[in-house]
Amino acid sequence: MHIADRISRLGTETAFAVAARAAAHKAAGHEVFPFHLGDMNIPTPANVMEAACRAMRAGKTGYCPSPGIPELRDALALDVNAARGTSYAMENVAIQPGGKPVIGKFIMACMNPGEEVLYPNPGYPIYESQIEYHGGVAVPYRYLRDTSGFHIDLDHLQSLITPRTRAIIINDLQNPLGAQCSDAERNRLAELAMRHDLAVLLDEAYFDIRYGGKSVSLASIPGMAERSVILYTFSKKFAMTGWRLGAAIGPREIIDVVAKLNVNDESCSNHFVQHGALEGLTGDQSGPLAILSTLKERRDAAVELLNSMSGVDCPSPEATFYLFPEVTELMSRKGFTDDYASFAEDILVKTGVSLCTRLHFGRPLHGEERRFIRLAYSGIDVDGIRKGLLALKTYAAQ
Amino acid sequence: MHIADRISRLGTETAFAVAARAAAHKAAGHEVFPFHLGDMNIPTPANVMEAACRAMRAGKTGYCPSPGIPELRDALALDVNAARGTSYAMENVAIQPGGKPVIGKFIMACMNPGEEVLYPNPGYPIYESQIEYHGGVAVPYRYLRDTSGFHIDLDHLQSLITPRTRAIIINDLQNPLGAQCSDAERNRLAELAMRHDLAVLLDEAYFDIRYGGKSVSLASIPGMAERSVILYTFSKKFAMTGWRLGAAIGPREIIDVVAKLNVNDESCSNHFVQHGALEGLTGDQSGPLAILSTLKERRDAAVELLNSMSGVDCPSPEATFYLFPEVTELMSRKGFTDDYASFAEDILVKTGVSLCTRLHFGRPLHGEERRFIRLAYSGIDVDGIRKGLLALKTYAAQ
Repeated sequence: MHIADRISRLGTETAFAVAARAAAHKAAGHEVFPFHLGDMNIPTPANVMEAACRAMRAGKTGYCPSPGIPELRDALALDVNAARGTSYAMENVAIQPGGKPVIGKFIMACMNPGEEVLYPNPGYPIYESQIEYHGGVAVPYRYLRDTSGFHIDLDHLQSLITPRTRAIIINDLQNPLGAQCSDAERNRLAELAMRHDLAVLLDEAYFDIRYGGKSVSLASIPGMAERSVILYTFSKKFAMTGWRLGAAIGPREIIDVVAKLNVNDESCSNHFVQHGALEGLTGDQSGPLAILSTLKERRDAAVELLNSMSGVDCPSPEATFYLFPEVTELMSRKGFTDDYASFAEDILVKTGVSLCTRLHFGRPLHGEERRFIRLAYSGIDVDGIRKGLLALKTYAAQ
Repeated sequence: MHIADRISRLGTETAFAVAARAAAHKAAGHEVFPFHLGDMNIPTPANVMEAACRAMRAGKTGYCPSPGIPELRDALALDVNAARGTSYAMENVAIQPGGKPVIGKFIMACMNPGEEVLYPNPGYPIYESQIEYHGGVAVPYRYLRDTSGFHIDLDHLQSLITPRTRAIIINDLQNPLGAQCSDAERNRLAELAMRHDLAVLLDEAYFDIRYGGKSVSLASIPGMAERSVILYTFSKKFAMTGWRLGAAIGPREIIDVVAKLNVNDESCSNHFVQHGALEGLTGDQSGPLAILSTLKERRDAAVELLNSMSGVDCPSPEATFYLFPEVTELMSRKGFTDDYASFAEDILVKTGVSLCTRLHFGRPLHGEERRFIRLAYSGIDVDGIRKGLLALKTYAAQ
């Protein structure tokens, strides 16, 4: 069969190849420490599971409205308002089969072919893929590393804005960097978006995965809610990655378009799953608190071990479940210079540690000299973290 | 926010407006007989529900592979081969969050902007919407009515094929007509598709909703599986409409593209729902048999009453759960001529019967003189069918 031309512009998540390589290594009889996963090995809270099964048995197995069941849209608007100081109503919420569908739907609803969209690099690879797939020009903005972690290079970002720039994607509490904006940085981003009349995708997938301090949404800055779509997901807070449930939250005129895309693409999201999510938002909150506690223990164990290694330097992000240690010295010492793939393969074979590198989060930018790897601790428990990273520590010492 | 230009090409399902009007009429205190729904008011088989809940509690709550869990892909390939005489393997199956996503993904994978795609009219409105949304030219083909029911006007269809025709959408066992091809018609369709090198979407959503005889897939004709994508859904056979699970089944090179679209659009379909579907395919089959028995009883009750009405003539399709009676005489006698909307409103107000008309399934074709309504019996039980259609019979007699 002939394949349409547009498919040549479609990207993917190359991290899946890492998972396949890790599975093959394990199948060959080796112990593998899965730091490559963005998935979670933590159970969904029992009250969420019971609510979903109860709704299923009560007959919530037929279609529901394309933008979601009213109770969940309403509860989510209230929840988001309480956490972000916004004033969304039910009509501002379109439930989706995951957070990810919001990326493509935002791009389709807001960007014309030929227009430019700013996106983070390193960053979630689907941004670039969806921008280019739908005929736009994907313009990467970069981060700077200081002692406290990573920060958007705002002067550079500002220099990238042209009359063709239509939108910007902001993933504060960032995958893979764990970066978060200061108040001053958020204000400057908002000022740029308003001055240049940009549509804004706020990917807040990790808003509730936070171990200290308080998450702040750009949507709370006056003038920003009117031009922003929040990507919300139930995946991380409630360990529901495989349930596939999220939402687009934004101005009514965009949410109406998103709901019309729902009618065309998938009719609606799973009906009884939405009742599970409703229990998650409105019921007993001990489940998400326990998830955070588990993740924090893992982060602390991983960061401490990474920073004890020769040639490795790792900030400790207050949010997300990712670490992005610098390994410039180690990689150079091991003789890999800029060959990330061979470096990762060498680590896998010699230590069993499976991880992603900077390359899985976008093409390296011009002049990029420092080297980074990404470790996720959402899919590996503390014992595995300790065992795997001790092996990596031995490797780094050699 | 600015809305991108492409959204102006996006259609919708206007039948949702009928549902909204019926709900308003009911809320005003009137009894409503819901013949407009394509949804089902029949429970999902208990073994499917239990298998899904069991999988959920067993931790099948994380991501699964983008094209679906291997067990389900494998079981579905075997099931489809047994029913259709095809020879698909797991690699030919990409699980989707519903049957509907296959429409858009087929169009995106196979059609370039400016190319023509043939689609049925009357037919499911999302075909036309997805073709036009992705920049194609939607070319409707028509049906002829004879005493046995509806048949594709194949001479007319052939005359519509041009050098720009890239694909054809075939919904044998058709919504809304209940039409099915004869062997000769299937052979001629296959011959046309092969001679003109067309990609084919076989929407087989109702393949297993059949009360007599045996469904035959165009994919079973030599040379057709190589150029066809089957839209498979769990929605109807297992009364799982709100679960959102289906599949694209076709040549490996297209299924690989569909799986890459999955990575970009929704990561994967719900994990534990796939285990429920696996039980549906491989476990006790009394559930789907009972569903068919319920639907057949409804069909017989509805067809008998419709044909007893003055000015109404209704074939009795052997498949689907839709009826498409001709009402030319009745509509004319009631003074509505071609005003379908007022006719349906008059029926709703005077009888409580809520139904769709021909208009909800595409723009009337040039020279179309006969008038039709569509009744679905998937969302209303036999008592409601009898009570509603007796009221309609009284209306028709006046």
